[in-house]
This record gives sequence, C-alpha cells and structure tokens, in this order.
Amino acid sequence: MQNHSIPIINHFVSLVSTKPFSQLLEEVEVIAESVITDLDLTVVKKTSHTFSPQGITLIYILSESHLAIHTWPESGILHLDLITCSTSTVNKFENSLKIALNQYDPFTIEVKQVSFDKQ
Amino acid sequence: MQNHSIPIINHFVSLVSTKPFSQLLEEVEVIAESVITDLDLTVVKKTSHTFSPQGITLIYILSESHLAIHTWPESGILHLDLITCSTSTVNKFENSLKIALNQYDPFTIEVKQVSFDKQ
Repeated sequence: MQNHSIPIINHFVSLVSTKPFSQLLEEVEVIAESVITDLDLTVVKKTSHTFSPQGITLIYILSESHLAIHTWPESGILHLDLITCSTSTVNKFENSLKIALNQYDPFTIEVKQVSFDKQ
Repeated sequence: MQNHSIPIINHFVSLVSTKPFSQLLEEVEVIAESVITDLDLTVVKKTSHTFSPQGITLIYILSESHLAIHTWPESGILHLDLITCSTSTVNKFENSLKIALNQYDPFTIEVKQVSFDKQ
C-alpha cells in the first residue's frame, strides 16, 4: 500500500552505448530537450560543464525535478538520470530515448527504474 | 568481468524520512556540503530552485559528476542522488548521510546503488 506521506518520485536511469560522438554541448542539449519535450516536462533552469579533454555534464532543473546527462564521447557512452514527480513510466522514458538518440544508432539503451520500499 | 570501455559510474540514491523541516536553502546546502566534504568530492558549479509553496532542488555539478537533492519539507522527505566517477561505496555514502543528517534525527535513511549489467 502506498504511503501517502511520500511524494511521487519517479526515478529513471539509462546507460546508452553508441559509437564515439562529438563533444559539442549543443548536440547533448538537442538530446536532452527531445526527452524533455517528449515527456512533457518543464525546464526551470539549465546548467552545464564541459570537461577537459572530453565529457559534458548537462543538468536541467525541471518543475518536476531534474534531468542530468553525463557523456563520455570518446567511449560512446551517455548516462541519463531523470527524476520526475509527474506520472511517467519506464517505457515512456525508454521510448523518449529511442527518439532522441535515433540518429546516433545506439548499440544498447539500458533503462532502469529506481524505487524504494515505501513508495 | 568489467568492460573497460565503460567509465566508472557509481550511482547512489537515498530517500530520507524525518520530521517536517525548514524550507531554507542554506540548510539544504549544509547537508549537501557535508556529504561532498565527507566523500572528498569537488564542486564545479551549483544551482538551485526554491519552489512555491515548498520544496527545494539543489544540484551540484562535481568534477566527479553530480549531487542532486530534492526536498519536501512539509512531508519531512529528502531525496539525494549522487553520481560519481570516484571510487566510493554505498556504505560510505550512507555514512556520509548519517553525519550530514545527524541533527535531523531521521526516522529512516534508505540507500540504493544503481548499476547496469555492463558495469
């Protein structure tokens, strides 16, 4: 039985493996904003950091919680971390990734939902 | 066997239940910075949003990845999400939370590690 004192916290995580890709922040933003649009989320703030020699961290504070993307372009790895108070499902998250990453032709898109006993 | 093309991604998540607490951003920063110091992490950037009527999202980009805290003060709930490329363990994360949250006298601190098959 759900404990009603606990807020809705839907937490989805994905590890994507693809070919090595570009280090451009703008390209990671396109991926993130495709997911955000597809899941009907609302951006409050955005921040990012471009690491040297490679790797981008891009984080959106959402009115529903947050989306964080970390990339390792040289290894072809993206890690996506979405926490949302909106009603969503792991299948919807996975489908939004397939759309967002379509042009990267990923080898694998692994997806998990994280939940706690009390939720 | 670990696939060496996959970077180290240690992902720890916690759901904390305590008494209702204050809505002050500074108090959430004290919690976050205690965890960051205790786990020897390095802050690159910090961003936050204070929701109306209640709730704070506080996110640090770390040189090792990110720490995000979401709070529901009226329900006494904190959700912490740490991704780090540094070597750490779920036990170290849990201990850092016990120290950071000591004065809140939490009812429960649930902790999980998220990992994927290829890691």
